[in-house]
Amino acid sequence: MTGLRFNTISFLSDYGLADEFVGVSKSVIRTICPDAVVVDITHDIEPHDVRAGGLALARSAQYLAPGVVLAVVDPGVATARKAIVVEVGDGQSYLVGPDNGLFAPAVSLVGGATGAVVLDNADYHLPSPGPTFAGRDIFAPVAAHLCNGVPIDELGTPIDPQRLLPGVLAVSEQADDGSIKAEILWVDRFGNAQLNVDPADLDQWPEHVSIEGGRTTRTAQRVEAFAEISTGSVGLIVDSYGLVSVAVDRGSAAFELEINEGDALTLRPAEGGIAPVAVSLGSKPTTTPPVPDQAEPDQEMPS
Amino acid sequence: MTGLRFNTISFLSDYGLADEFVGVSKSVIRTICPDAVVVDITHDIEPHDVRAGGLALARSAQYLAPGVVLAVVDPGVATARKAIVVEVGDGQSYLVGPDNGLFAPAVSLVGGATGAVVLDNADYHLPSPGPTFAGRDIFAPVAAHLCNGVPIDELGTPIDPQRLLPGVLAVSEQADDGSIKAEILWVDRFGNAQLNVDPADLDQWPEHVSIEGGRTTRTAQRVEAFAEISTGSVGLIVDSYGLVSVAVDRGSAAFELEINEGDALTLRPAEGGIAPVAVSLGSKPTTTPPVPDQAEPDQEMPS
Amino acid sequence: MTGLRFNTISFLSDYGLADEFVGVSKSVIRTICPDAVVVDITHDIEPHDVRAGGLALARSAQYLAPGVVLAVVDPGVATARKAIVVEVGDGQSYLVGPDNGLFAPAVSLVGGATGAVVLDNADYHLPSPGPTFAGRDIFAPVAAHLCNGVPIDELGTPIDPQRLLPGVLAVSEQADDGSIKAEILWVDRFGNAQLNVDPADLDQWPEHVSIEGGRTTRTAQRVEAFAEISTGSVGLIVDSYGLVSVAVDRGSAAFELEINEGDALTLRPAEGGIAPVAVSLGSKPTTTPPVPDQAEPDQEMPS
Repeated sequence: MTGLRFNTISFLSDYGLADEFVGVSKSVIRTICPDAVVVDITHDIEPHDVRAGGLALARSAQYLAPGVVLAVVDPGVATARKAIVVEVGDGQSYLVGPDNGLFAPAVSLVGGATGAVVLDNADYHLPSPGPTFAGRDIFAPVAAHLCNGVPIDELGTPIDPQRLLPGVLAVSEQADDGSIKAEILWVDRFGNAQLNVDPADLDQWPEHVSIEGGRTTRTAQRVEAFAEISTGSVGLIVDSYGLVSVAVDRGSAAFELEINEGDALTLRPAEGGIAPVAVSLGSKPTTTPPVPDQAEPDQEMPS
Repeated sequence: MTGLRFNTISFLSDYGLADEFVGVSKSVIRTICPDAVVVDITHDIEPHDVRAGGLALARSAQYLAPGVVLAVVDPGVATARKAIVVEVGDGQSYLVGPDNGLFAPAVSLVGGATGAVVLDNADYHLPSPGPTFAGRDIFAPVAAHLCNGVPIDELGTPIDPQRLLPGVLAVSEQADDGSIKAEILWVDRFGNAQLNVDPADLDQWPEHVSIEGGRTTRTAQRVEAFAEISTGSVGLIVDSYGLVSVAVDRGSAAFELEINEGDALTLRPAEGGIAPVAVSLGSKPTTTPPVPDQAEPDQEMPS
Repeated sequence: MTGLRFNTISFLSDYGLADEFVGVSKSVIRTICPDAVVVDITHDIEPHDVRAGGLALARSAQYLAPGVVLAVVDPGVATARKAIVVEVGDGQSYLVGPDNGLFAPAVSLVGGATGAVVLDNADYHLPSPGPTFAGRDIFAPVAAHLCNGVPIDELGTPIDPQRLLPGVLAVSEQADDGSIKAEILWVDRFGNAQLNVDPADLDQWPEHVSIEGGRTTRTAQRVEAFAEISTGSVGLIVDSYGLVSVAVDRGSAAFELEINEGDALTLRPAEGGIAPVAVSLGSKPTTTPPVPDQAEPDQEMPS
C-alpha cells in the first residue's frame, strides 16, 4: 500500500530512554522514510552488553515483523569494528548494526546469513559533527533507506557473511557423572532465570532436580505451570521460549536463590527426592553445625 | 480508510521496558494486523499489582481512542484464571486480558460490560513452546484479530459479564465524628497523593483540613492551584481526574508526609485554623518541647 | 497523502513512563488527529528541570521531522506562566508547551521564532475536571489540532515572540590567564560529559589539557575517537553534537572524575604534558603519605 519494500523497523539498543538517543534515531528514520513504523524491542540492554543484546534479539527473532532490524549495542563505536547490514532469508529481512557478534545468535536461529555488506558508502549516512553517534548518523539512515528500497549493494562493499564476527554463547555440558553444567542466560523482570538447557536433556530425569550454584543448593520440582510450584519451593519449567527456566510462584527465583545472569549452575537428578529445607553453601561455616536434639533426631532429617 | 474495524490498541502492562516482552507483543500485533497502531499507556505497573493496573486503566479510560484495550497484569498466568475479552458500549470498545479484576474499575466507569467471552479458541492464538507468556501468545494476537474484524463469538465461549471478577476498591467512609477515612489510591511521579475522596464530600468543610496518617499530622489548605500552596505548606487540591489529592508546590507530598500508595489517611475539619508548625507523631517525644528563650519569646512565634 | 498539514508530533516531557501521563496525552492526540504519528524524544527529563529539557530539545532539534514539537517540563503548571505555541521558519514547524524558557535554546538554534500565540482559546482544549494536567487538556489537543490544519491565530492571542521567556544557558568564559571556565551541560547514559565549549576555542591548544573540577584535576588527551583514549586515561573529544566532551574509553567519565551536570570545570593547556598519575584534590591529604616499610621497600613499589 505504501510502495515501500519494507514498512517495519524493529529497533533494539543499549541507549536507554533517559537521553534522546532513541528519539533522535527515530526522527531520522521518520524524515528519510516517513511511512516506516518503528517497533521498539527494548532499549534497556545494559550499556555495552553485546551478549545480553544478542540474546534478547534471538528470543525476539521469530516474532518480529518481516523487514529491517536495527540493533545497536556498540562498545567499539568508531573503532575498527565494521558497520554492516546482514541479509537473511535471501532478502526477507535485513539486520543493520555493528559487526561485533550482536546479530550472531538471531541470524543463526533464522537459518544463517545469505549476504552482508560493509556500510562504507557515506552517501547514505548523515553528515556528522563528530565521530561518535553511529546510531543516528549511519545505522538509522541505512535502515530507513533499506525500507525505501535501496539495494544493499548500493550501501557499501559486499563481504563474505562467513567472515562476520560470531557470537560467543555458552553451550550446556553433560558431565561424566550425569550432571549438567548450565549457565543463566537471562533473568527477566519477574526474576525467572532462563538456562541454556534444552528440555530434551532432562527427558530421563526424575521429578526432582538438585540445583547447585550461587550461594545455595536447592531441590527443584519439574512443573508445567507456575501455579504447580508450591509456596516456598523452586520449580523447573519449560519457559515461553522453549528453554528450561528456574522459577518460583509469584516471586523472584533470582532473588531467592541469589543468582544472576552469567552464573554457572549444576543440575543433578535429586535421588533423595525433595529436601524440606534449603542448605546454604555460603559464608556460614558448615563444619560445626548445631547439634540436633538427641531425643528427636528424625525431625532433623528428611525421611 | 484502512478497512479495519478498529485501528488503535491501547496497551498497559506490568512487563516493564527492560525485557523485550512489550516489543515482542507489539511485533505480534504488527504481523497479524499491520495497520493497527499501538498506544502504550504504561508498562511500569509494579509486577503483579492488579490494583495499581486497574486504577491506571480507570484514570485513562475516558481519554483512550475507541478500539481495543490490551491490559496484562497477571499474577495467575497459566493457572485457573480465565483469559477474556470484555465488550463495552455494545461493541464500541473491547478489553483483552486476564479475568482477575484488572478491568473492573475502568469497565464500571464506562457503563459496564455488554458482553464477555473466554478466549478458548486456540485458532486465534500463537502456538507456544511453553505455557507462560500469555501476552505474546494469546492476548496480543486476539487484540490484533479484533482489529481485523473477527467477531468476539469466534474467539471463544460467551460468558455472563456479571460473572467477571470484580475489582476491589476501597470506598472512603464518613465516620460518626464527621471525619473521613480515606485511602491513597496513587502517588504519581511528582509525589502528589490521590485520595478516594470526592470533592463534594468536602463541600461544607472549612478552608483548612487536618490530615492524619503516615508518621505525621498536618494541616492542609484547600486550594485551586498548586501555586496557591505556600512554601512549606500542604495543599488539598481537586486533581486533574476530579478527585481530591494531597500536594505541595514544586515538591513531593508523598516524601514530605512520608505516605505511600495504599496508606490510610483521616481527614478532619481543622477547627483551630492552620497550625504554624507541623506536629510529628513519630519517634520524637512531644511532651518535652524545647523551652523557648525567655528573653526573646516573640522570635519563636510567627506574628 | 493524509491531507494533514503535519503528520509528525515530536514529544518530550518530564512525565516519566511509570504513570500513564504520556500514554493518555498520546491517546488524546490519537483521538483528535488519528493520522498523526508521535515520535517520543524522551520523557525522562528530571521532574521540573527546564534547563535539562531545553538542552535535550536543542540537541535533537536539527534531526526532528518537520511538524509539531510538543514539549512539557512545567514546574509552574496552572500558575501565571503562559501556555504558548511558537512558530519557527515561517510555519515550517511549531512548538507547543509552557512559556518558561524550555523552547529558547532550540528556537534560537533554528533561527528564532517567527510568531507566537498564547493558547487562551478554550475551544481547542479538553474540558478538565481539575486544573493540573495541562499536557492532556491543553498542549496535546493543541498539537493535534495544529496537525489537522487549525491556523495558530485560531488557538489564541498573538504575542510578540521577542517577549517569550529566554533560556538561561551558561556560556564558557576565557579567563585572562588563557584558561576556559566551562560548565557541564549534560552527562549521558554512558557517562560522557558534554561541555559548553566550542572545539574552535581549543584550536591553538596543545595535545594535552588539564581539567580542574569535581574532586580531581586530570590531564586529558585531545583525541578524535574513543578508541584513541588509552585505558585509564581521560580524553577530550568533539562529540556527535559538535561540542567538546570529556570521555574515557568503555567507561564513564562522570563516574571516574566524580563530575555531574551543572558542575563547573576549568580547562588549561597542560604545559608539562600528560601527568603520569592522577592527583586527587579531595579529602585525602597528600603532604604526609604513608611511610613505606623500610625493611622491604621494593615490595611497595612497582618495578
